[in-house]
Amino acid sequence: MSQRIFEGLKVLDFTNNVAGPGASALLADYGAEVIKIERPVLGDDTRMWVSSVLENFTWYPWLNRGKKSVTISLTDPDGLAIIKKMVADVDVILQAFRPGVMQRFGLDYESVSKISPSVVYCSISAYGQTGPKATKAGYDQMAQAYTGLTDMTGEPDGPPTRVSISIIDHSTGINAFGSICAALYHREKTGEGQHIDTSLVGCAFSMIDPFEEVARGAALGVPIKATRTGRFTSYPGTGTYRGKGNEYCAICVNNDKLWGLLCQALERPDLITDPRSNSVLSRMKNAPLLHNIVADWVASFDDINEALEKLDKFGVPCAKVNSVGDLVTDEYLLARGAITDIPAPTSMQARGVKTIRARGPWHVLSKTPLQMRKPPDLGEHNVEVLTRYGLSADEVVKLQDRWNKSK
Amino acid sequence: MSQRIFEGLKVLDFTNNVAGPGASALLADYGAEVIKIERPVLGDDTRMWVSSVLENFTWYPWLNRGKKSVTISLTDPDGLAIIKKMVADVDVILQAFRPGVMQRFGLDYESVSKISPSVVYCSISAYGQTGPKATKAGYDQMAQAYTGLTDMTGEPDGPPTRVSISIIDHSTGINAFGSICAALYHREKTGEGQHIDTSLVGCAFSMIDPFEEVARGAALGVPIKATRTGRFTSYPGTGTYRGKGNEYCAICVNNDKLWGLLCQALERPDLITDPRSNSVLSRMKNAPLLHNIVADWVASFDDINEALEKLDKFGVPCAKVNSVGDLVTDEYLLARGAITDIPAPTSMQARGVKTIRARGPWHVLSKTPLQMRKPPDLGEHNVEVLTRYGLSADEVVKLQDRWNKSK
Repeated sequence: MSQRIFEGLKVLDFTNNVAGPGASALLADYGAEVIKIERPVLGDDTRMWVSSVLENFTWYPWLNRGKKSVTISLTDPDGLAIIKKMVADVDVILQAFRPGVMQRFGLDYESVSKISPSVVYCSISAYGQTGPKATKAGYDQMAQAYTGLTDMTGEPDGPPTRVSISIIDHSTGINAFGSICAALYHREKTGEGQHIDTSLVGCAFSMIDPFEEVARGAALGVPIKATRTGRFTSYPGTGTYRGKGNEYCAICVNNDKLWGLLCQALERPDLITDPRSNSVLSRMKNAPLLHNIVADWVASFDDINEALEKLDKFGVPCAKVNSVGDLVTDEYLLARGAITDIPAPTSMQARGVKTIRARGPWHVLSKTPLQMRKPPDLGEHNVEVLTRYGLSADEVVKLQDRWNKSK
Repeated sequence: MSQRIFEGLKVLDFTNNVAGPGASALLADYGAEVIKIERPVLGDDTRMWVSSVLENFTWYPWLNRGKKSVTISLTDPDGLAIIKKMVADVDVILQAFRPGVMQRFGLDYESVSKISPSVVYCSISAYGQTGPKATKAGYDQMAQAYTGLTDMTGEPDGPPTRVSISIIDHSTGINAFGSICAALYHREKTGEGQHIDTSLVGCAFSMIDPFEEVARGAALGVPIKATRTGRFTSYPGTGTYRGKGNEYCAICVNNDKLWGLLCQALERPDLITDPRSNSVLSRMKNAPLLHNIVADWVASFDDINEALEKLDKFGVPCAKVNSVGDLVTDEYLLARGAITDIPAPTSMQARGVKTIRARGPWHVLSKTPLQMRKPPDLGEHNVEVLTRYGLSADEVVKLQDRWNKSK
C-alpha cells in the first residue's frame, strides 16, 4: 500500500536561497515533482556561494535535491506566457519575492486562484505579506536582529551575536513545509486550496517568548541585555563549562529530579536541600554561585570526557561541545543515516563524481521514508518540462538562447 | 466549505517541555482534539518553570494552548489500562520518552499498531530511536552542543556560546508537526498509519552544513573554531555593527547586486569593481578589510537609525538589533497579529485574568487559519475525557485521589 506521500503532486517553486528551497526539497523528498524556476544564466543565488565557486558544491545541491530546474525569464512576455500556463497546471506554488512582485506579473494568489481554485500557494517573505514592513527586504540576519535573538545571544556585556548559521531560514522552510502539508490535507478532504503567508520574522518570533523574558528579568532584577546567553532560564541550562584541555561541555538541569542527580554526580548531596538550590526559583536566583561550583567541578578533571562519563553515569543530560570539523566523520551520525550520500548533479557525474556527502533524513517515516534524489544542473529540465506546455524542443532552445544572450 | 483542518482528529500526547507540546499545539490550533497526558500532582515540567512559579504564566499555556489535560499515573495498572483503551482510539500519538520506555509499558508503535494500524505515531527523542546513543538523555542544550552549533556561535577566540533560546526544541516541534501532517495526508489517501522517528540532534544537524564549513575553512585557510560567528560565509553577513550610541545593526549582502547597492549607500562605488571586493569569493577573502570599512561607516552616524534609513533607501537588507524588551509593544508585530491575546486558563479566569498576551500565528492560512484556544489547568479534563473510556465520574475522582496521595 505504501507509496511516496506526494507522488503525482506538481509543485512550482519560484524561491531562491534557503527557506523556500528547504521547504520544497522536503516535498520532493516525499515524492512531489518540484519544478524550480531559475533565472537564465545565473540561477539561484546559492549557485554562486563560495562552496559552489570553489567546486565544493554543497549548498545548492542539498537544498535542491530531487527537483527539476527550468530557466525562464519572467520579465520577457514569452517567458511570462509559459509561466501562466504552468501556474494553472500545478497543485502547489511557492514564492518568496517581496510582496507586490507577483501581483505585477499577474501571478499573485488572487489571480492564480481564479483559474486554479484548488492551488495551495505559499508566500514566504521577510516580514509577511501585510503590515507596515511588508515590502522591506530581509534575510535570516534581519529576522535574528529584529526579534531579539541576536541581542540575547553572546557573552555577558559583549556585543550582540548572530547565531552563526541561517537557523531562521531553515526553520522558516520547515514551517512552510508543515503549513503546506496541512493545507494539502485540507485540500485532499475538501478540494479547497488557499494562500499561506509565512515570514522569517514571524517564524523567529514564534520561538522566542519575550513576555517570559521580560517577566523573568523583572522578577530576578537582571536586565536581559546585560546578560545575553549568560542569563539564567533554568540552572544549569544556558552556559558552557570549560575543561582543563580547553574543551567545553553543556549540562542541562530543568527540574528537581535532575538537580538531585547532578548533586550526586558532584558528590554534593547537601545542595539538594540547601535553600539556595532546592527549587527552580532558588537555583535561578543563585545561579552565579552554583555556576562556579559546577564550573570548578568540570575543570577539576584532567580530561573533560571523564566529567561527561560521570554525569552520564548518573543520568544527567550533558554533551561535549563538538566542532563541526569533527562531525563529518561522526560514528553516531553515520549510524543514524544523518550523514548520507546523495547523487551528484549530472554535470558532476560527467566529471566522475557520483555522489555528494551530505546531511541525511532527520525525520524517519517507517513506511514512506523521504528519499534524497539528484539535484539539477541549471536549466537541465528545460526541454522535458517546457515541451509539456505547447513548445517544441526547438522553440525551447531558441528561447533559452535569447534569454542567455540578453543577460 | 472551509472548516478547521484537523477537526475530528484525536491526538494523544505524552510529551513534556517544548518540542512535543509545540508540535501538538499546532495540531490543536488547526482543530484537532489534543489530549495531553500529565503526571498527577506535578504535570508538565514547564508548569514549574520560573514564570509559572512567579505566576507570570507564559511557557506552559502558550505551548499547550487548545489542549485537554488529563492526569494519569502510567506506573499504576489502573492508569495503564485506561491508557491502553485511549491509544486504540486515537488518530495520532506523540511521545518523547527515552527509547525503550514505551516498550516497557506495551505502548510502543509495534504494539499499538497491531490494534490500530492506521495510527500516526511520532516519537521525539534527543538522539533518535536507533543508533549508539539512542538511550542517552538530552535536551536542546545537548543538541546544540553535539552538532557544533554552540561551537560555531560566539566571539572570535571567545568561548563557545549556546544560542540563548531553545531554538532546537522549537524547530524539532515544527519538524514533528510537518512530518505528522505529511503522514496524515498519506493516511487520508491510503488508510495507512506509520511511525515517525525524529530527534533534537537530527533536526539541529539538518540546519548545519558541516561539509560546506569544512570545505570553506580549508579553502580560505581559516579554522572554524577560531572564528565562530566572526567567520565569513558571505560578506557582509555574519557580524553586527555598532553605532555611536552603543546600538547595533545587522546588514546582509549575499550577491553582487546587493553589494553594488551597499557600495552606493556607502558612497564607495570604487568597491564595486575593486578586485578585492568584486565577487563573492574576493569579498570573503578580504572580509576583515571590508568589515572595517562598513563598521566605520555605521559608527560615523550620530544615530544608528540614520545609517539604517540610508541602507533602506538603497534597498540594502538591514535591521536594528532589537532587545526583546522592546518587542512586547512593537507596532509591526501587533499589526501583523504576531502578538496576540489567548484565553487564560480557567483558574486564571477565576482570578479575573481573562487573556494572556502571547505570540500569535506565524503561518497565516487564508481559509483555515490557526486558532489559539484556551490552555488547560492540570487535570481539568479528567472527567470529560476519562468517562469516555468506561469510567464513571465517581471512579475518575477516586482514581485521581489515589494517585495524588501516592505522589
